[in-house]
Amino acid sequence: MQEFELIQKLIPLLPGNASLRVGAGDDCAVIDMGVPGRELLFKTDAVVEGIHFKPGEEPERIGHKALARCLSDIAAMAGTPLAALVTLGLPPQFDPAVIEAIYRGMGTLAERHGVAIAGGETTTNPDRMLLSIALIGWVERGKAVLRGGARPGDALFVTGELGGSLAGKHLDFQPRLEEARWLARHFEIHSMIDLSDGLAGDLRHILKASHAGADMLATAIPLSRAARLASRAKSSAKPALLAALTDGEDFELLFTLPGRLAVQLLDAWKKEFPKLRLSCIGKITADAGVRIRDKQGVRPLTVHGYSHFK
Amino acid sequence: MQEFELIQKLIPLLPGNASLRVGAGDDCAVIDMGVPGRELLFKTDAVVEGIHFKPGEEPERIGHKALARCLSDIAAMAGTPLAALVTLGLPPQFDPAVIEAIYRGMGTLAERHGVAIAGGETTTNPDRMLLSIALIGWVERGKAVLRGGARPGDALFVTGELGGSLAGKHLDFQPRLEEARWLARHFEIHSMIDLSDGLAGDLRHILKASHAGADMLATAIPLSRAARLASRAKSSAKPALLAALTDGEDFELLFTLPGRLAVQLLDAWKKEFPKLRLSCIGKITADAGVRIRDKQGVRPLTVHGYSHFK
Repeated sequence: MQEFELIQKLIPLLPGNASLRVGAGDDCAVIDMGVPGRELLFKTDAVVEGIHFKPGEEPERIGHKALARCLSDIAAMAGTPLAALVTLGLPPQFDPAVIEAIYRGMGTLAERHGVAIAGGETTTNPDRMLLSIALIGWVERGKAVLRGGARPGDALFVTGELGGSLAGKHLDFQPRLEEARWLARHFEIHSMIDLSDGLAGDLRHILKASHAGADMLATAIPLSRAARLASRAKSSAKPALLAALTDGEDFELLFTLPGRLAVQLLDAWKKEFPKLRLSCIGKITADAGVRIRDKQGVRPLTVHGYSHFK
Repeated sequence: MQEFELIQKLIPLLPGNASLRVGAGDDCAVIDMGVPGRELLFKTDAVVEGIHFKPGEEPERIGHKALARCLSDIAAMAGTPLAALVTLGLPPQFDPAVIEAIYRGMGTLAERHGVAIAGGETTTNPDRMLLSIALIGWVERGKAVLRGGARPGDALFVTGELGGSLAGKHLDFQPRLEEARWLARHFEIHSMIDLSDGLAGDLRHILKASHAGADMLATAIPLSRAARLASRAKSSAKPALLAALTDGEDFELLFTLPGRLAVQLLDAWKKEFPKLRLSCIGKITADAGVRIRDKQGVRPLTVHGYSHFK
């Protein structure tokens, strides 16, 4: 059984209560704590040695990545992070200097975004290090940007450049908190997600929640330098476009807004964030499924990319 | 390096912010989110296969224990839990029926206390199952009961019976949420903690935070049936009193209040919670350290118990 099927079976088992606004299935849970004008965002995310980072990886970068992933989910709701707890699972023989360096990496990023590290716990995880972050934040009441709001005619945008994150970006990326709040404050953002599984996979989360489909333009998808270099270096490597669609761990924002606002957004973005690319890569359709257009025509896109249509 | 020393080195590295009221070092973090009349409580706790539960343990009980531990920390602040996120680390080959049963165990306990399970994530933990709970709750503004408020002359109380939890209670215990809120509402509770490491260890957390010591009366310490049976069954087993002091995982409340209120509390408790034992086991002193009195006299108590003074 795949993780996704398991989660679908578990969701009906989860009890709710009157304060729960958004539960399982979006980037963060949304909870009404009774704060005037605000709702609480709540998120956890874990990284595991050998899965999300290599044994012996620079510990500051491990700490950075663990917290940044969680911050990226707060960004995807257009929220502001406030406080984190750290759960550290450690083999019995651990090097205290490594742990301190992990905390320095987390602490530097936390301070940059005004996040308190409010404590946590260490526990034994005998075979490998595991680092789980729990994060709370807030968003203006009723203003959390969810996955399910995309509408036919929306333009589909992505920040930054995609693919090849494993070459280094996955350890150093900056969560798009400021950009996401700016978007939600100035534009009618219908839906948003952060790219963790890869564009082809995460777009489906928006489309499933929104009961919609999408048309994408292959030449509009921003390819990272890492993805382009890798595809050139070895003929066996993924083509850069496939990498951009499926590599995952980009931690950029994917969002939709009414198509009539697309040009206005691009102009305003260039003034506000001149160093960060923003690309209109397609549009939302009433027809289900995802189609990608390149110079050979229009082809259906699966969650695994488009390669088996070649 | 021990876990405790590591944590002492890490705490200065943790950034704070204006909303953080209580950070690392108490049962929960306390955060001011701007809720009128209330503060937020925030806690995480993990259980690991082979450490906190045996491989093959009944999965409903694993789920119950994981959530109950976290709820017990909310209880120790006299708080009310609100919503939880679940992080499940799983080996690649997992049995979906086991996972569903874990969620049923958590869900039953969550519903009993009005707690929403707001989502979470599954991740790969290749070698063993790991279950981490993140929990938010609330407490009346300024009314969280901390560890550091014990004063000389306070009476020292404990709920329930101690020792031998591994015989079964550690998987089935009921967090003392209702009892803790009742205590804080009706009495001037100076300090409180839930017993996870064992009475001898957890009492030190209160004393260290309160800059105080304690005198205990050996015959007043409530011994569980499990601890008494175990000590009788094998001559090599821990004496029941040592088990009560050091076994851990009792998840009872240990708290202090002014000595003059002790009798009044015992009377009121019997009416309110006739089925749950409450014991006055000693008093807080200005002198540091812990002393225990039995029929042979007064002896110092270490965190490991008193056995090596025999």
